[in-house]
Amino acid sequence: MNIPIAIPVSTPAAARRRPMTQKIVTLAHGGGGSAMRDLIDDVFLSAFSGAGRAAPEDQARFDLSALMAHGDRLAFTTDGFVVDPLFFPGGDIGKLAVCGTVNDLAVGGAKPVALSCAIIIEEGLEVETLRRVVHSMAETAHAAGVDIATGDTKVVARGACDKLFITTTGIGVIRTGLDVGVTKARPGDRVIVNGLLGDHGAAILNARGDLALETAIASDCAPLNGLIDTLIAAAPGLRMMRDATRGGIAAVVNELAEASKVGVRLDELSLPMRPEVMGFCEILGLDPLYLANEGKILAVVPAEETEGALAALRAHPLGREAAVIGEVTSERPGRVVMRTRFGGERIVDMLVGDQLPRIC
Amino acid sequence: MNIPIAIPVSTPAAARRRPMTQKIVTLAHGGGGSAMRDLIDDVFLSAFSGAGRAAPEDQARFDLSALMAHGDRLAFTTDGFVVDPLFFPGGDIGKLAVCGTVNDLAVGGAKPVALSCAIIIEEGLEVETLRRVVHSMAETAHAAGVDIATGDTKVVARGACDKLFITTTGIGVIRTGLDVGVTKARPGDRVIVNGLLGDHGAAILNARGDLALETAIASDCAPLNGLIDTLIAAAPGLRMMRDATRGGIAAVVNELAEASKVGVRLDELSLPMRPEVMGFCEILGLDPLYLANEGKILAVVPAEETEGALAALRAHPLGREAAVIGEVTSERPGRVVMRTRFGGERIVDMLVGDQLPRIC
Repeated sequence: MNIPIAIPVSTPAAARRRPMTQKIVTLAHGGGGSAMRDLIDDVFLSAFSGAGRAAPEDQARFDLSALMAHGDRLAFTTDGFVVDPLFFPGGDIGKLAVCGTVNDLAVGGAKPVALSCAIIIEEGLEVETLRRVVHSMAETAHAAGVDIATGDTKVVARGACDKLFITTTGIGVIRTGLDVGVTKARPGDRVIVNGLLGDHGAAILNARGDLALETAIASDCAPLNGLIDTLIAAAPGLRMMRDATRGGIAAVVNELAEASKVGVRLDELSLPMRPEVMGFCEILGLDPLYLANEGKILAVVPAEETEGALAALRAHPLGREAAVIGEVTSERPGRVVMRTRFGGERIVDMLVGDQLPRIC
Repeated sequence: MNIPIAIPVSTPAAARRRPMTQKIVTLAHGGGGSAMRDLIDDVFLSAFSGAGRAAPEDQARFDLSALMAHGDRLAFTTDGFVVDPLFFPGGDIGKLAVCGTVNDLAVGGAKPVALSCAIIIEEGLEVETLRRVVHSMAETAHAAGVDIATGDTKVVARGACDKLFITTTGIGVIRTGLDVGVTKARPGDRVIVNGLLGDHGAAILNARGDLALETAIASDCAPLNGLIDTLIAAAPGLRMMRDATRGGIAAVVNELAEASKVGVRLDELSLPMRPEVMGFCEILGLDPLYLANEGKILAVVPAEETEGALAALRAHPLGREAAVIGEVTSERPGRVVMRTRFGGERIVDMLVGDQLPRIC
């Protein structure tokens, strides 16, 4: 059974809402009865009550002809979030869950319309912690201009999950005529990123506290749909975009090299990166190309549109450090090579093993 | 980052797929690198490869004008599944995750179109277990006529989740002119269910093995969209439908009584129930009205359409035991009362506390 996050038309939230007396989440809050209802009314409805579009049913409903005003194709994407810790410099699991799915929609060229939110909670979680996460989701969704339109809550016994997991699924509309995709890169195209790489991965690792580094690197977690609108307008020949999350820049460039049957040549000296993050990677023996980002896209544009694309990105608050980091070639299709800072060359493969679990 | 479950156009699954050598899931399978790719290719793509509609991107894509051929509104719903054990008589977590979301779409009057699937896996799970679950999802989706169009996989360390959780989100199209909803019940309407109540809850409890009962009660887990099509055709005045999952029949009738501002009178003797389930409830002191179902809907129809609705349900394999279980009244709006088998009357409230955790 789903939980309608939108306010039922017949029973305004103000009338239904009962203040919760319990301070921690219990199994009863996932049981489908009155405790669950109280939790939803008090924690979710109060945060998401402006969300608007959903119907008084379990399911949210959208007028198809209204959607068609934005474009001709519906985009649909999902992501689970298990980040540890729940709160970190620059964000928290709620902000991440909204940004991640908004960005997955936007990089495909879609205008994000609405998200669903399914939460799995460990018995014993403080209600106040849940409230902070939900508030952060609502705030981020508002900033991104999307509704959180429907949701679900499950509670499992202590030890059966680690505090809180969130799955967000998004729908959006792809503007008519836009045709971007991972198969579309051509030799001569330029590879661009919108800013400093690796901040999210470094922030999460640092926030776990094992390293006791004094540098407070903050996650770059941000909704990128506004930035992407700007880029699309400035570079009509845009080939593809992808958010460089798990697996980092390396995963994205390898995927595009394989799917487009092209080579990619990166230039290490042009990778925008904080000295703190580079130092961090050196200390820990991590390769920054594999560090996760949550506010960075990699875009491929035709050479002649590169300057326009860069200028547009740099004029946006989330793109000030945008840079060209490489180019698409016809050499060795499917392969990514990097010119190192020492003038040599090395192959950049996909991550083997895992660099850092639970970074998103 | 999402995982495209659909086969990229440029790299057919047959070419990409590498046989997995590992027998258990490791953290690397969620790391965004080559191990994750292998897992997706070998376990997910091989099962979902007929799924069709998704694009070679993270996001699945659907032509909006093709969707409009089915109706005028898009339905959007999500549900997390944490059932324990993963496999039980009559189903498993994969079948449940598909049926649950298909049914949530269908009870709102939507034709289910596609699902997304986000899986959180505990490190150490056997790959073979995952494969069985994914195969069951594919089989159930095929039976229900929906595509599993996109997905995501996360792996968490041992002890950070219990084996496997699945979140499915569904999109569907609501047929033009159909207007069902929880606010629409009117005094005089009849309350119908499509068959035997409580099988799922009893089956899960029994499958946990603590009771060592010899009766093998099987879950009723099934996709109900075909049955619901039949019902809509037979009862054009249909007021509302809802699947009676967590919280049981009691949760649904209470919700409709409150939302429609009507009373509901149930008749205990008319509740269709297996003697084994009734016995089970007596032994354990459970109230069958709160037992979960995963293949049962509660529908409210105008009195004059009751016979037609019943006949249509009973002609369908999933509705043979359909019955009228009560009626909508103008007495005590918001209240549900039940005429007991002894001729008395009692109030049926929403569940207080939790009867049984992790039944879905």
